[in-house]
Amino acid sequence: MDTKPKGIHLPSLSRLLIGRPLKTEDLPHQAISKTVGLAVFSSDALSSTAYATEEVLIVLSMAGTSAAVMGLSLPIALAIGLLIVIVTVSYRQTIYAYPNGGGAYIVARDNLGEVPAQVAGAALLTDYILTVAVSISSGVAQITSGFPALLPYRVHLAVGVIAFITIVNLRGVRESGRIFAVPTYFFLIMMFFTIGVGLIQWLTGTLPTVEGVQVIQHETLAPLTLFLILRAFSSGSTALTGIEAISNGITAFKIPRSYNAARTLIAMSSILLALFMGISVLANRIHALPSHTETIISQIGRTVYGEASPLYLLVLASTALILLMAANTSYADFPRLAALAAGDGFLPRQLTYRGSRLVFSWGIVILGLLASILVILMHASTTALIPLYAIGVFLSFTLSQTGMAVHMRRIGRLKPGETMKGLEAVLEHDPHWRRKMTISIIGAAVTFMVVIVFAITKFASGAWFVLLLIPTLVFIFFRIHYHYKDVAHALSLSGRRPDTTTRPVQTIILVDDVHAETAQLVNFAKSLGHPWKAIHVSIKPEKADTVQAKWDERIGEGELLMLPSPFRTLADPIKEYIEELRQTEPEGFVHIVMGHLVMDSFWEQALHQNSALIFNLAISHMENVAVTVIPFQIVRHNHHHEVASD
Amino acid sequence: MDTKPKGIHLPSLSRLLIGRPLKTEDLPHQAISKTVGLAVFSSDALSSTAYATEEVLIVLSMAGTSAAVMGLSLPIALAIGLLIVIVTVSYRQTIYAYPNGGGAYIVARDNLGEVPAQVAGAALLTDYILTVAVSISSGVAQITSGFPALLPYRVHLAVGVIAFITIVNLRGVRESGRIFAVPTYFFLIMMFFTIGVGLIQWLTGTLPTVEGVQVIQHETLAPLTLFLILRAFSSGSTALTGIEAISNGITAFKIPRSYNAARTLIAMSSILLALFMGISVLANRIHALPSHTETIISQIGRTVYGEASPLYLLVLASTALILLMAANTSYADFPRLAALAAGDGFLPRQLTYRGSRLVFSWGIVILGLLASILVILMHASTTALIPLYAIGVFLSFTLSQTGMAVHMRRIGRLKPGETMKGLEAVLEHDPHWRRKMTISIIGAAVTFMVVIVFAITKFASGAWFVLLLIPTLVFIFFRIHYHYKDVAHALSLSGRRPDTTTRPVQTIILVDDVHAETAQLVNFAKSLGHPWKAIHVSIKPEKADTVQAKWDERIGEGELLMLPSPFRTLADPIKEYIEELRQTEPEGFVHIVMGHLVMDSFWEQALHQNSALIFNLAISHMENVAVTVIPFQIVRHNHHHEVASD
Repeated sequence: MDTKPKGIHLPSLSRLLIGRPLKTEDLPHQAISKTVGLAVFSSDALSSTAYATEEVLIVLSMAGTSAAVMGLSLPIALAIGLLIVIVTVSYRQTIYAYPNGGGAYIVARDNLGEVPAQVAGAALLTDYILTVAVSISSGVAQITSGFPALLPYRVHLAVGVIAFITIVNLRGVRESGRIFAVPTYFFLIMMFFTIGVGLIQWLTGTLPTVEGVQVIQHETLAPLTLFLILRAFSSGSTALTGIEAISNGITAFKIPRSYNAARTLIAMSSILLALFMGISVLANRIHALPSHTETIISQIGRTVYGEASPLYLLVLASTALILLMAANTSYADFPRLAALAAGDGFLPRQLTYRGSRLVFSWGIVILGLLASILVILMHASTTALIPLYAIGVFLSFTLSQTGMAVHMRRIGRLKPGETMKGLEAVLEHDPHWRRKMTISIIGAAVTFMVVIVFAITKFASGAWFVLLLIPTLVFIFFRIHYHYKDVAHALSLSGRRPDTTTRPVQTIILVDDVHAETAQLVNFAKSLGHPWKAIHVSIKPEKADTVQAKWDERIGEGELLMLPSPFRTLADPIKEYIEELRQTEPEGFVHIVMGHLVMDSFWEQALHQNSALIFNLAISHMENVAVTVIPFQIVRHNHHHEVASD
Repeated sequence: MDTKPKGIHLPSLSRLLIGRPLKTEDLPHQAISKTVGLAVFSSDALSSTAYATEEVLIVLSMAGTSAAVMGLSLPIALAIGLLIVIVTVSYRQTIYAYPNGGGAYIVARDNLGEVPAQVAGAALLTDYILTVAVSISSGVAQITSGFPALLPYRVHLAVGVIAFITIVNLRGVRESGRIFAVPTYFFLIMMFFTIGVGLIQWLTGTLPTVEGVQVIQHETLAPLTLFLILRAFSSGSTALTGIEAISNGITAFKIPRSYNAARTLIAMSSILLALFMGISVLANRIHALPSHTETIISQIGRTVYGEASPLYLLVLASTALILLMAANTSYADFPRLAALAAGDGFLPRQLTYRGSRLVFSWGIVILGLLASILVILMHASTTALIPLYAIGVFLSFTLSQTGMAVHMRRIGRLKPGETMKGLEAVLEHDPHWRRKMTISIIGAAVTFMVVIVFAITKFASGAWFVLLLIPTLVFIFFRIHYHYKDVAHALSLSGRRPDTTTRPVQTIILVDDVHAETAQLVNFAKSLGHPWKAIHVSIKPEKADTVQAKWDERIGEGELLMLPSPFRTLADPIKEYIEELRQTEPEGFVHIVMGHLVMDSFWEQALHQNSALIFNLAISHMENVAVTVIPFQIVRHNHHHEVASD
């Protein structure tokens, strides 16, 4: 049983922030075109170009900011470009093989089993949180580059933006696409125009170099080792994050879905490649330098257009906006994956329920909270967050491609024309299975190598945390899974029809004082028609005689039993009494009836003992006991301040 | 109904800290002698000499630290001494008039009515919190005077000590007296010995003046106005706090109680007077100077004995110890007064219940929390707390003495030999009533003047807060009182015997899924023998058919009704259904039966929906609805990790 967690405690406030409830049948089913799909699914991938080049330069700057060292960013960018191509080709296959959605979790679950699937799940959930933290931190950095006065407030800004996105998503973002398309195309236009203008300036010899950058100062310079270069490569590989988004969302595309999704993937990757290479080359040409106070995008915009140009501010705005959209995609991905894993019984079931606005409310709130904590701990510094980032993504790439290799091997076993219905996809013979399997193996091997490079080069600066976190999460997921299995097993009737022969019922009324509520309890117990008795637990011995006298005078039927309570607890004497009753009637139900005064406000409620809730907790470990609470509404009279007779 | 709030959530931890539960009959009834009574009740009053002189000097130092200005402390001390005499004589009368305990709350309630009683109650409760904060802050200041290295940790130390006293009091301090006597007599011996040695040194001309004090620096000197002198007098009047303690605790003395208590009061006040005057004179002789880092007691001890003498450290230790004991007395007074006011219905009823160790646990915890908050806010500075302190005490003195004047007037109306049984005391004709009334009127007038002086001279430095707080508290107390009266009135049967004729009962079973727990619910409903129906609220429409099929197969009797829930809530469809049922049977009970899976740990419980609790909240505003929860114990099997059939 469930009830929506929202709306019970703060109905009016939550209604204001979250909006009116939506019906289940309102879930959107609208298909989107390639153009819109590109905008919807690519913000995460494309936005990473806003920080990827910068992070390469930051790592390289540890060995100095000479042109020779900084120039290494270009071969590194080429290597990352090659990685983009390999991963794109691999994922294109996944889109065709899993037309109903082929995220790493599903592909791993389908081909590799539970443990790899949960590893992929843990890795992706971790990375979705980091996507929010990194994107918002970088977005705020774009804004503070243009308005340095805001620099001291960057943590406040970042947390505020996360809170805003969280609320918007709790309201439910209708993925209508058109609105999402605006920031993505705005960003693409601004960036390609800037790169174009910059390259023309370079070719005509009019491109200046950047001036007035507060360069990051390292106390001692590190030697330029292979380790440092690989670390720079690792940091730049964050450009690939989000490239898997389309494979999760194939069902959103128009028919033929896989074809349209695959075309969109190719388009997105080509744009990503062009953008990343363009920014890297341009950064190199203007001699951009890593800084704690100004992003590389800002340096490029300022150098190409001049600091006073409105175009410079538009570049910053478009970059900040697409980073915001990228964070927003995690708000769709995280709750969806959490609900998927919860449906499989690896996360708390509550995550599978849609809230009043049809979104997975718990997942959204958890994501917002965790991302905010990360941002606060890391002072909204993209550079501090990057070492934690992208390991999860590349781990999921590896598992997904390994799963695809297994998938292709299974297809290879089928005879020509033979098909097989798998769990998630229909397996069909494919004469090219060997070539496809090879592509998947190459993809898996390359991305696995990247994971290893990540783990080694970024271990000390933060990756250790993620490397500990993912196995810990997997362990917890399985603990949860075994718990649910145990409970299902214990509850299982296994098709047996249980014995529900009627049994004797003994009713006990709990009486604190004798008044109108007590009469209601007696009325209910009498109406049930089973043997009943009232008991008063004598916590204050001096009160017992009064209660007995009132009972005789005002109820005057049935028996009121006084139970002493030397330790002044309510539950213990009742438990003992139930045990006594059980000896006379071992198979019967003991039915406890108690009242609960219902007040209009929380503060009034707090003035009463609310022992029903506490008592329920205390008694819950007894067998064949039923606890009935009868809410009693207080009817207020207008003549206040009169002394009541009771 | 009530159950002890402690021990349910953290039984093992609380048992460790608080100790095993005690029986009600274990409440102590042992009477104490005058010698022990002096020690038990005087720690609060005597300990205030540790800071009273100092606070006078601090205020005077605003006008400079010349011998002429500092010398004003002596006439101020004389005025305070006179005040001690007046209050003592007044309270001596109270002890005889109220032999069962005559605190300001009781005397005001008995003679002046509800509002003055609640003002006295609010004033005293506020001051008990301040006693803890001031005493602990001053005690820590004594320690840091001897060990300046601890100065940066004074807030930590103070909060730690408060936590310690709170836990000790939750365990229940058995007021055996003997142990309490040790610190009080230790302090008296050390102080009188020090004053004696100091005075002899002075008379023999060997008393040095103090050296090396880091005097408080005021940026600009204030003129020496009457206002400043009155303010210094106000600060010094804190010496009187605690003088009322004996009048609260008369019943603890041996018979004849009033006589013994009155003798003890006189003894205590004489000691207080001697101690306060002695410290003031000696401080003046050594030219003690107010400092943020060293107390006056420390300066006296250091000057009389020398810094290296162990006697100096013993002076500090005995002072710190008696201040700790003074704070401890508030832990008896605050919960007792709170329980008294709660018994009268002006504070939440929960405050009247004794916890597992026979103490008023809620009162102790609340006192500890509020005192800790004050100490943290005021950085454990006695000087910052003093402006808030003692207004409450003097207000309660005024109300108590005014009450006594009324009391004497009532006695005066009795004929010779006539007695009258009052609420709290037996009224007997007394030929000296006029003289006694005059004493009470003088006491009331003088203490009221002190309240006015306090309010004016310390208003800006913090007294405004207390002057706002006390009326606010009184307002809240009456709101609570009217609430309880309303509820009692609404519940009252006024001697009428209510109609408890049996009514029809319709049983509804809430079914989420069909398993062993469901069978238990059906069994209970069948055993009750009233018409029953099962309902499944269809939050996930895709699940409905499975549930229906399982019901037919595994239960196979009764009717399972499917209620659609377009907004995915549990409570709303059920509420609507209840309304429908009520139309067919307007006078009947609707009886809802639901299950609750009981898990072994909090974390496991969190993995299940626990909708019973949430549902109870949602349904509680309906009339004639009974909600039964049947706890269902999960029986674990050893063969883990098998897929259950359900």
